[in-house]
Amino acid sequence: MSRALDPGSLAPLFTPSSIALIGASTDPSKVGGMPQKFLMDRGYEGAIYPINPAADEVQGRPAFGSIADVPGDVDLAVIAVPAAGVIPAIEQAAAKGARAAIIFSSGFSELSAEGAAQQIRLSEIADEAGMRILGPNCMGMFSVPNQVYCTFGTAFGHYGGKGWPAPGGVGLISQSGSVGMHLFSLLRDRGIGFSRWAATGNQANIEAADMIAYMAADPETTVIASYMEGCPDMDRLAEALELARAAQKPVIMFKVGVSELGSGAARLHTASDAGDDDAMDALFADHGALRVCDMNEMEDAIYAASHNWYPARQETGIVSISGGVGIVMADEAAKVGISLPELPETSQQKVRELVPMAATRNPVDLTASWLRDLKLMGITADTMFEDADLASAIIYLSSVGMDPAFAEKIREGVAPVAQKHPTKALALSMRANREVCATFEKDGVLVFDDPSRAVRTVAAMGWLKMQMDIAP
Amino acid sequence: MSRALDPGSLAPLFTPSSIALIGASTDPSKVGGMPQKFLMDRGYEGAIYPINPAADEVQGRPAFGSIADVPGDVDLAVIAVPAAGVIPAIEQAAAKGARAAIIFSSGFSELSAEGAAQQIRLSEIADEAGMRILGPNCMGMFSVPNQVYCTFGTAFGHYGGKGWPAPGGVGLISQSGSVGMHLFSLLRDRGIGFSRWAATGNQANIEAADMIAYMAADPETTVIASYMEGCPDMDRLAEALELARAAQKPVIMFKVGVSELGSGAARLHTASDAGDDDAMDALFADHGALRVCDMNEMEDAIYAASHNWYPARQETGIVSISGGVGIVMADEAAKVGISLPELPETSQQKVRELVPMAATRNPVDLTASWLRDLKLMGITADTMFEDADLASAIIYLSSVGMDPAFAEKIREGVAPVAQKHPTKALALSMRANREVCATFEKDGVLVFDDPSRAVRTVAAMGWLKMQMDIAP
Repeated sequence: MSRALDPGSLAPLFTPSSIALIGASTDPSKVGGMPQKFLMDRGYEGAIYPINPAADEVQGRPAFGSIADVPGDVDLAVIAVPAAGVIPAIEQAAAKGARAAIIFSSGFSELSAEGAAQQIRLSEIADEAGMRILGPNCMGMFSVPNQVYCTFGTAFGHYGGKGWPAPGGVGLISQSGSVGMHLFSLLRDRGIGFSRWAATGNQANIEAADMIAYMAADPETTVIASYMEGCPDMDRLAEALELARAAQKPVIMFKVGVSELGSGAARLHTASDAGDDDAMDALFADHGALRVCDMNEMEDAIYAASHNWYPARQETGIVSISGGVGIVMADEAAKVGISLPELPETSQQKVRELVPMAATRNPVDLTASWLRDLKLMGITADTMFEDADLASAIIYLSSVGMDPAFAEKIREGVAPVAQKHPTKALALSMRANREVCATFEKDGVLVFDDPSRAVRTVAAMGWLKMQMDIAP
Repeated sequence: MSRALDPGSLAPLFTPSSIALIGASTDPSKVGGMPQKFLMDRGYEGAIYPINPAADEVQGRPAFGSIADVPGDVDLAVIAVPAAGVIPAIEQAAAKGARAAIIFSSGFSELSAEGAAQQIRLSEIADEAGMRILGPNCMGMFSVPNQVYCTFGTAFGHYGGKGWPAPGGVGLISQSGSVGMHLFSLLRDRGIGFSRWAATGNQANIEAADMIAYMAADPETTVIASYMEGCPDMDRLAEALELARAAQKPVIMFKVGVSELGSGAARLHTASDAGDDDAMDALFADHGALRVCDMNEMEDAIYAASHNWYPARQETGIVSISGGVGIVMADEAAKVGISLPELPETSQQKVRELVPMAATRNPVDLTASWLRDLKLMGITADTMFEDADLASAIIYLSSVGMDPAFAEKIREGVAPVAQKHPTKALALSMRANREVCATFEKDGVLVFDDPSRAVRTVAAMGWLKMQMDIAP
């Protein structure tokens, strides 16, 4: 039988009042030194206890020879010592009463039979002590609302050390820390804020299922995304996915190890058994998790979900200033299985009155006429929502957004349409810088650089919406 | 019987000594005014004759009431007048002896039966006069070496009017001007230079096949890329593709209208019959043209081809600082049909000696050890080429390139490997700005933001290499 999910038991991991850093380094650029630097730089308000028997002081804070010497309670222990020292460290943390631990160290089941045996011992200790362990062989976690940064990820160093996450609703769980950091950096650079982030590594004790269950209950998290190499217990995962669905939170899954080569690599990386891919596929479909297949699909789905952008159905209306791109998008729509309903005659008539040479069926091609009246795009999208009741619309605008003044004029035509139709999903495909995109996003209008990616996102989010609407 | 290809007949279009602008506007922001402004701004050295019966002077140059009044010869006539005026204009251009014309105007076969009849008349005039016509319903062309800019594309206005193409080997043919401009702007922003660019529109007289044949013979062009909605004559296209293959120039095709909806939209856009997609697919495969399915695939293939980056076989070695991304890439490799050969024991041994905990089969996972020696990536790629004789290698480096100083250290390890193995194809998957990417590209190392796109590009370019190697 599966172990019961116990989301509350992860609270000490994400909201610790005190953190002991076992293997704290005086060098803030080392794996063992980064968490302390991050915690201090970000102003974590709990107690920080560096544990380092060779130093009186670590990065300006008094250090302790052992976790046993710490004067106060310890909620969370972060372990950054070589593999051989991990079991003693976790035993000491358990003896001290720590309720959660993070083990950065590798050299366990991903390496050897001996390592696998030690990993089993780790999970036994956790079970005996009622302690939750993240890892081993993991990049740790961060939690934005309370400034907990127990990780050695390097992406915060981007932009001259200004690469910190903004607060937001995305909870990201990644078995691979690198994949998790890559996704974090992509999403951060697209203006998306985070609640929690965790790398689960070898998953000796905490699996993705535990994290999903925690985030389903977590008021800070509105969107759950998970990169997964292996699933140790499909029943638990199914149960966690249903908790998320009941909480009306989307779950976006990037499950790898689809191919023989990929699953072989997964075995070497986190000792994961990638499992039967068809069974995984069915599990995600049955329990309403959206499965994505690469970083860009993951990024786009999280981006859309974090803007609460859900077409009610897998259909769209395409408004284009380029007949050619309209065709590209129509082909893509057919490929991903979304429909482009023919506009009703009233709508087609409205467009034709404004642009006699326009193609009006759907895709609508406004031809070069859009240039003489920048409101045409908005008017067309409006009739798609108002008269045709389409669930979504995508306006293709080429590189128009690269001229911010021009983009602002476009926004004046588009923003009222989004405001008038809050249940509809409106997106632009347009090349533009982040500042320009942000002005549209404030109005609930998404911006995609690539038209095909915009179409794929309609398919993904329309599917997710249907799934979330099914009451469990 | 197909009309014979006659590449030399397009010379007046791309290398005119004199250009008449029929419908020249005094407003340089108007469609009829843009070519003159572009030609003057870029310093076109031939004669420019604005034709405008209502003005003595257009944008500072003496204007003529009719093309008949022009004192010298006219090689190329650009026609930017309403549809009703096009036939008289083309007749006058023919009478003047112009050998090529570009018709921006729309309102022909894409609009109505009457327009279709007029378009037939246009092609008759062209045939009678031995004149080549680009369009109608097209965005014109540009030719970088000789600064001919007869187009109303707006992408040059990016970056405060500094969005001009750099000289280079890419010849881009797009039936849709907007798609062509979109691709141009993507590639320009990725550091790629252009030879010629042309939008073929309704293809009354000049089809993609003519353009491909011209570029196959054109010494300025080394890479041919074409966005196509309809193919009026498959035999001519096949013949043109074989000319390109004989010239050892890759042809990259983005043929749309795959779906029923897409082909319906193509009919409305450029009156194109998208044709039987299976037959098109077979034609491209038989004649060695790489078929791509979206803007990003098109961009990546042109990018790789313009750096002459061809794996000899559809295989790769993956070097990763993230086991997780190694799995993502292995899955993608399986999906697109490229192999990841297991490294020979000598190679695996070499890597293990440097990184005892590394996964060494392929993908190679250097784990966090890469941080202690930035040369490890290069050493691993070297043994993949030297000892395993792999045709290509991709090194995944997450967001490392976002720190330029760090990226420079990586480059020191990677550049010598590329120099030592000039017949091998080496790429990085790394987030980095354009300046950083350019330093790698100078050494022949490509940089992809996304790891899955890097893998897809190996598949595409390996296929193209095999095709180009088949002597016709």
